[in-house]
Amino acid sequence: MSEPNFATIGIDLGGTTTRVGIFDRDMRTVDSQAMPTRVAAGPQEAVGDMAAAVRSLLNSAAGQGKPCAPIGIGIGSPGPINLRTGVLGLLANFPGWDNFPLRDALIEATSLPVILESDANAAAIAEWKLGAGKTLGLPSMAMLTLGTGVGSGLILNGEVWQGMFGMAGEVGHATIVPGGLPCNCGSSGCLEMYASANGLMRLARTIAASPDGTAALRKLTSGTGECTPLQVAKLAQAGDRSARLAFEQLGTYLGIGVSLLINTLDLPLIVVGGGVASAWPLFADSMFKSVYDHSVVYRLTAPTQTLTIEQDHAFICQAVLGPSAGLLGAALLPHLHGLAELATPFSFAEREVPN
Amino acid sequence: MSEPNFATIGIDLGGTTTRVGIFDRDMRTVDSQAMPTRVAAGPQEAVGDMAAAVRSLLNSAAGQGKPCAPIGIGIGSPGPINLRTGVLGLLANFPGWDNFPLRDALIEATSLPVILESDANAAAIAEWKLGAGKTLGLPSMAMLTLGTGVGSGLILNGEVWQGMFGMAGEVGHATIVPGGLPCNCGSSGCLEMYASANGLMRLARTIAASPDGTAALRKLTSGTGECTPLQVAKLAQAGDRSARLAFEQLGTYLGIGVSLLINTLDLPLIVVGGGVASAWPLFADSMFKSVYDHSVVYRLTAPTQTLTIEQDHAFICQAVLGPSAGLLGAALLPHLHGLAELATPFSFAEREVPN
Repeated sequence: MSEPNFATIGIDLGGTTTRVGIFDRDMRTVDSQAMPTRVAAGPQEAVGDMAAAVRSLLNSAAGQGKPCAPIGIGIGSPGPINLRTGVLGLLANFPGWDNFPLRDALIEATSLPVILESDANAAAIAEWKLGAGKTLGLPSMAMLTLGTGVGSGLILNGEVWQGMFGMAGEVGHATIVPGGLPCNCGSSGCLEMYASANGLMRLARTIAASPDGTAALRKLTSGTGECTPLQVAKLAQAGDRSARLAFEQLGTYLGIGVSLLINTLDLPLIVVGGGVASAWPLFADSMFKSVYDHSVVYRLTAPTQTLTIEQDHAFICQAVLGPSAGLLGAALLPHLHGLAELATPFSFAEREVPN
Repeated sequence: MSEPNFATIGIDLGGTTTRVGIFDRDMRTVDSQAMPTRVAAGPQEAVGDMAAAVRSLLNSAAGQGKPCAPIGIGIGSPGPINLRTGVLGLLANFPGWDNFPLRDALIEATSLPVILESDANAAAIAEWKLGAGKTLGLPSMAMLTLGTGVGSGLILNGEVWQGMFGMAGEVGHATIVPGGLPCNCGSSGCLEMYASANGLMRLARTIAASPDGTAALRKLTSGTGECTPLQVAKLAQAGDRSARLAFEQLGTYLGIGVSLLINTLDLPLIVVGGGVASAWPLFADSMFKSVYDHSVVYRLTAPTQTLTIEQDHAFICQAVLGPSAGLLGAALLPHLHGLAELATPFSFAEREVPN
């Protein structure tokens, strides 16, 4: 296992696309591949697709004399997952996949060690080791991923915090508005009803229909065609005050969620990622104000905008790895779980970020 | 240090009373003493009082041939405290104590090793090792203490989770009602505005003034004399429906706070202590319903009322140690910090609970 050409394999299982990548010891991309996730064909078929992609990538790497000796596979999957058993829960966008033993099936299909994590935890690992947290060397952080919903991953004292069932990190389902909007999870007023891409669209439509709504936002949100967060962001960037208001409201709600993490865990770093996070300048001010208003711990630790290793307050920042965080984090899992122990130490050298 | 008569010293610093106790290796009480906390005299005088009590208790124990070789002092103090530096923050009920270096002052006054913790963390440690968590042997839990405010302590993977500043565990200041009642901390809608003793009295007065209010509750809450949570509890126990409603509402709010902990950390055990917790039968049902309503993780992990070591869900229960938890937890600190390492292993044998 101390061969110089050892590789780790990452798999990012998504509702529409599955990404598979091989990475060398320094987490440089050797090769990667994206393919449609055949959800309807069922999980066993999808695992077959993953295993075939892994074999194909490894063979291709071997043919080119690139690192191809796999020490293990890390896979990030949408939750809920029972991480103790490696069995999927009731996944919203994967009908028929309930109770599928994803980890065991992938071990059987590849004959390789497999480390399973939630996709949100995988993204957190990547930002921690290779992204926003890379130069900080902090033992603990949280990442909130603002996508269709709001995912979250916690790193505490150098390890992913999975909780007793592997269901920790459901900060997206923290109640921030008691009696608020009903959520798919069965609760109401969950953070993800307000601070996700869907939440943004909901806020935009509500504002459009209110006296605060501009004609431009009304036109955008009431059309028969699809209206995306990106369109709302462009309208806001162009100065539309009601589109800006939607992002400001999102920032306020997000700040309540961030405050819960800071008040509860007094974390040094909170990273905000996912598609919505690319509109950071549109919601950051209201988010910071909201964190200040809602977190006594944040106020007491005298936030400044100076970031140093010896920081004296929670640092809240935008993720830097973009959509590749999930794949990179998955490929880091074999390292974190000691599978690379017999090889030379992992150096986290500069590496390209795969698409 | 391997002498059979080694002792640990606990100090529970409270706004009105300071308790000091000596405990033997098995955490049996050797002797203890309670004295008024001379808040107005200033922190240096109060530390002098503590040191004098420690000396007096040790001398008395020595005179009786009881364990009197101190391995260290553990002290639980109201927060906020910077646990990294051992310096007090702005304590609500200790005017003039701001920025006092409590840990260093106590080391100087006693010439003993001193471990400082927040009182909420100390209580959590006691319930974890000697109370509700004793027979479970779980590595992680949270404790919420419903007193004048709502304190909280987190044990994660066998250690107190202090956060980067020692300010973790401010779950009492989690925003559970955005735009809700203003809190002393500067935020609004904090859990402790609704689920503490003061919160209960506020709920009772609001209900008394509403159409739901009975004549008995109105009489109790509108009198010029003091009205206590205990009086409201007695009225509720006697069947008064508006007094019962106050506890039910408290349970609903508390459940939101408990849900935040379960959703975020997927903890196996949540212990509810403090004075208000003794009214457990009056709020438990509404609290459990609220946790079920607000926590997807709790729902997914199929709660049952069966408690086993191999439990399959978060167990939420009443604290068992009562007001002595703070002192016991403080006295456990030298053990947890390895000061007893050279002595024989700590057996956590059956011991009396001091008053």
